[in-house]
Amino acid sequence: MISDLNSILSMSSKRMKRSVIRELLKMTQRPEIISFAGGLPSPESFPGELLKEITLEVLSSDSAHALQYSETEGDKRLRELIIERYNKKGVNVSLKNILITTASQQSLDLLPKIFVNPGDKVICGIPSYLGAISAFNSYGAEVTGVEMDENGMRSDMLEETLEELKKKGQKPKYIYVIPDFQNPTGICMPEKRRIEIIEVARKYDVLIVEDSPYREVRFAGTPQRTMFELDGTGQVILLGTMSKVFVPGFRIGWVIANEQVIDKLVVAKQNTDLCTSAFVQKISAKYIEKGYFDENLGKINKMYKEKRDAMVAAFHKYMPEGVKWTEPEGGLFLFMTLPQDIDAEDLFKVAIEENVAFVPGTSFYCNGKGKNTLRLNFSYMSKEKNEEGAHRLANAIKRLMK
Amino acid sequence: MISDLNSILSMSSKRMKRSVIRELLKMTQRPEIISFAGGLPSPESFPGELLKEITLEVLSSDSAHALQYSETEGDKRLRELIIERYNKKGVNVSLKNILITTASQQSLDLLPKIFVNPGDKVICGIPSYLGAISAFNSYGAEVTGVEMDENGMRSDMLEETLEELKKKGQKPKYIYVIPDFQNPTGICMPEKRRIEIIEVARKYDVLIVEDSPYREVRFAGTPQRTMFELDGTGQVILLGTMSKVFVPGFRIGWVIANEQVIDKLVVAKQNTDLCTSAFVQKISAKYIEKGYFDENLGKINKMYKEKRDAMVAAFHKYMPEGVKWTEPEGGLFLFMTLPQDIDAEDLFKVAIEENVAFVPGTSFYCNGKGKNTLRLNFSYMSKEKNEEGAHRLANAIKRLMK
Repeated sequence: MISDLNSILSMSSKRMKRSVIRELLKMTQRPEIISFAGGLPSPESFPGELLKEITLEVLSSDSAHALQYSETEGDKRLRELIIERYNKKGVNVSLKNILITTASQQSLDLLPKIFVNPGDKVICGIPSYLGAISAFNSYGAEVTGVEMDENGMRSDMLEETLEELKKKGQKPKYIYVIPDFQNPTGICMPEKRRIEIIEVARKYDVLIVEDSPYREVRFAGTPQRTMFELDGTGQVILLGTMSKVFVPGFRIGWVIANEQVIDKLVVAKQNTDLCTSAFVQKISAKYIEKGYFDENLGKINKMYKEKRDAMVAAFHKYMPEGVKWTEPEGGLFLFMTLPQDIDAEDLFKVAIEENVAFVPGTSFYCNGKGKNTLRLNFSYMSKEKNEEGAHRLANAIKRLMK
Repeated sequence: MISDLNSILSMSSKRMKRSVIRELLKMTQRPEIISFAGGLPSPESFPGELLKEITLEVLSSDSAHALQYSETEGDKRLRELIIERYNKKGVNVSLKNILITTASQQSLDLLPKIFVNPGDKVICGIPSYLGAISAFNSYGAEVTGVEMDENGMRSDMLEETLEELKKKGQKPKYIYVIPDFQNPTGICMPEKRRIEIIEVARKYDVLIVEDSPYREVRFAGTPQRTMFELDGTGQVILLGTMSKVFVPGFRIGWVIANEQVIDKLVVAKQNTDLCTSAFVQKISAKYIEKGYFDENLGKINKMYKEKRDAMVAAFHKYMPEGVKWTEPEGGLFLFMTLPQDIDAEDLFKVAIEENVAFVPGTSFYCNGKGKNTLRLNFSYMSKEKNEEGAHRLANAIKRLMK
């Protein structure tokens, strides 16, 4: 073995930390614990039987290609089908505008790979998805947070931040937003705010990365157009994934962007994993082609609405005064705010005694704030456990408030 | 769209180029062309029927996990089975020493991610696998080539190179070698040379990356122990993959290394794609568990031997004097050396007229040499086409020699 491993590690390796949440999840795996900590879709939503049928078809009709290397750009039929779904919804894109990735996390890795030099600025909402911030950090990005309100990232604060950076001669590489059912808050940004953000981005000539894993997990309210569509000029890079609306176990995501950006991402992906599994791409394509995707999506959303309703109803019933939570119209998470003086990390310890778990919100705050917040997943546990867990959580909070 | 995309690209993006070979492959897709250019396994080697059986079993018995996120480290059962195969061959490793990756290209991306800062040196053989060099370059590595002979990388030249660097106060991050049926030369390094390389690496305190995609594609001769085994101290990082011995369409590879190195790679992988598809991992595990892996490997090797034999026999029959080629005991490639004054890029044009294609060897030379060499793949085309293509290639060479 070499004499001193640490001395030869890259700066990138030194910047990367193990995901706090993944480490936390290991603590919450006792069967008696009701865990709202993870971000997993429900296994009940997985179309196992349909997949048997489709996989046999793919292996019978096209195994020579399904088991071979795929094009780096992605399986052509899958790309066509995804493009078709966007086109049907009025989003004007073609085959030149899409790259299939090994799920959204790869998209979040390839973007800083093509854009970020160490020290470059990237903007994100406070709070934001930890896996994205961590991927940006691994390339040496300095993440600047912009405050959010009940409608998502504040456009006035974004403008202020960009103006301040401009005065220092700095321009961020991109603005990272999750407009639909944001992780961790569950907030859906209204169109008006989306347009404001786009206008600010244009004014300061900065790209927007629109991360959209939960968009189609909508069980109430009215869909808001994507920022990609609202912009229409290529200022926005849109990220999609199959993980929450089909199965995460396939690792399929995509980037929709201007042709020049796609071209750079394709080269970066060649270096990174050559191509995404042709096998799961061809199965996914057939799943969409046969209409199963939209059929199953309806079922998933119905199920998640019931699960959210169960959790929210129990909060209304059991939570002490002073505790607030979001009631999202989609996605997998809601966000809770405790009275100012209660620390969610203290609550975590009491909650574990009550056999219920969550993620303290501060993990998602790049500025270290959010001590009195927590993220709760409502998609993974059953309706009954959501209700029982909400009750336990209320008990834990009451114990701590005494 | 932002005003000037090129101005905001990262240094990494500027360093990355589209794979020359992938671009070349697009030129060789006319059906009348017999192409020895790609590096694809034969679709006849894919166990489509067995995969139907196994996939149904996985979906029936374990769809809740097979379709969910996997651990970043990889599916436990798959890791156990791979470890078991190494243990049976006398390689002393355990679960702590393995990370499943999204095929070898991801391993080749994660290694520079944790080790390479821009400007750092990495050593490779001349010639070497282009995808590896390209991945190292994308992190700003400066690749220094070491000459090879008929036994692979020259240990005396390696020592000379390391000594020169040492005098300049430089130490490379790692030495990249492909000891078994090297891409592009097909050379298998004898144990004596492996040991010499290890001794030099130890003397200069430098890690070795042993890339081993073709090791089990052996159809003649005696297996040489892996450098990982010969070392036994953790100086060597060993890369394996399912792509050439099972199916490339699953994108499954692995890294075998010292526990501390694995730990750093796991964190890097979390940032890069969270985890490799649980679905294809569980199918692969069952495939090994049922003994199908070793059974099918025997068939693959028998087939590839016949294909190599057909190509080599035709060379003996048709090639003009002055042309030399390797006759590897395994792998997918052989390497041809033309008379000094013939340029393989000129030959390429004539060969395309004769409806046969290959990759000019110079692509694999980080020092721009190897103008009179070419890489020929013998695994993808049928025996008959290998023979016919070899004949056509001989004709093209004769035309050019006139």
